[in-house]
Amino acid sequence: MDVILLDFWISVFGVRVRIALAEKGVEYEYREEDLQNKSPLLLEMNPVNKKIPVLIHKGKPVCESNIIVQYIDETWHDKSPSLLPSDPYLRAQARFWADFVDKKIYESAKKIWTAKGEDLEAAKKEYMDLLKVLEGQLGEKPYLVGESFGFADIAMIPFSSWFYALNQIGNMKIEEECPKLAAWVERCMKRESVSKTLPDPHKFHELLMMRLNK
Amino acid sequence: MDVILLDFWISVFGVRVRIALAEKGVEYEYREEDLQNKSPLLLEMNPVNKKIPVLIHKGKPVCESNIIVQYIDETWHDKSPSLLPSDPYLRAQARFWADFVDKKIYESAKKIWTAKGEDLEAAKKEYMDLLKVLEGQLGEKPYLVGESFGFADIAMIPFSSWFYALNQIGNMKIEEECPKLAAWVERCMKRESVSKTLPDPHKFHELLMMRLNK
Repeated sequence: MDVILLDFWISVFGVRVRIALAEKGVEYEYREEDLQNKSPLLLEMNPVNKKIPVLIHKGKPVCESNIIVQYIDETWHDKSPSLLPSDPYLRAQARFWADFVDKKIYESAKKIWTAKGEDLEAAKKEYMDLLKVLEGQLGEKPYLVGESFGFADIAMIPFSSWFYALNQIGNMKIEEECPKLAAWVERCMKRESVSKTLPDPHKFHELLMMRLNK
Repeated sequence: MDVILLDFWISVFGVRVRIALAEKGVEYEYREEDLQNKSPLLLEMNPVNKKIPVLIHKGKPVCESNIIVQYIDETWHDKSPSLLPSDPYLRAQARFWADFVDKKIYESAKKIWTAKGEDLEAAKKEYMDLLKVLEGQLGEKPYLVGESFGFADIAMIPFSSWFYALNQIGNMKIEEECPKLAAWVERCMKRESVSKTLPDPHKFHELLMMRLNK
């Protein structure tokens, strides 16, 4: 097979790549990695970061999920839909919000898993404030940037599978506090590329609790 | 003026944008920000991160240095040189190394400024190991990705103005240990876009020492 994906089923970063491949209708061989015992192929293909996901196309590796999604969009540019808009300003916007998810949303959510007492309250507030920034960015628009589902949505939507666990652990009500974001999640979930790829939020919660209790 | 850059003269991130604008021959109005007392315009144009650099083009802001450089390349695509290669695989490579600089080189260098004793030794080793990864990526090539100066080089070259200060503070010999990287710095410095933009390394060292002694 021309395209191989080294991945781990519950990875939010891997999910991004799987959504992009599904959107473009690219066939690929999925190879599950054991993250406690990484394959020689993974270490060879991503020697710098040693992380999944890695997309191997015609034997050559592409690493880092947001970079892989752009690579998919550019390599299969003749297949619709375009994942990035054609206008340079909207492209910059899409990249800005994908970067925001990586630098802010991801780091902030992880804090809630492990913080206690006052730190937990601060982490919850920080995370909710960040979600409200996304709520503001959505406004009355259907998607984060432009009029169609694309790069920024693909960057963020995997993190919606954490909302249930975060609501439970942090006693939060994300959907009530961020109704536009909740509606956006539902809108994205109507796409097969998303609904068939996102892990079950209850399963994520269960695995997270097992890991935290260790 | 159509293009305004909100920046701070010694910022490695701002330097990236100034190099890209110089490469493309784009005229712009430079506005120095007081980072202790940010302008209302900066806060309005980058309300999420509140950071320089911000490129304002026809009244609309673009934020985050690597995103701005791509925006410049795409907006003035008819002006040579192209900052990103046309081949999707090489584009992904260029983005990978720019990302590596942001996530690894930048964070690692900052540790050396403040660490003491054993922590300082560990920070120095980590940083030198990262530079050696770049040394390996250069190999016999003139630039980090492809045959011409571009996106990855623009991401990294501003950090060479820190080498003198890091050598002094960490008692390191970066140029001796990484001769290919040192030759790459000299090669980049032959471009006016770089040599006229990079801050004086001695000045950076002096300012850093003043700040650390506070």
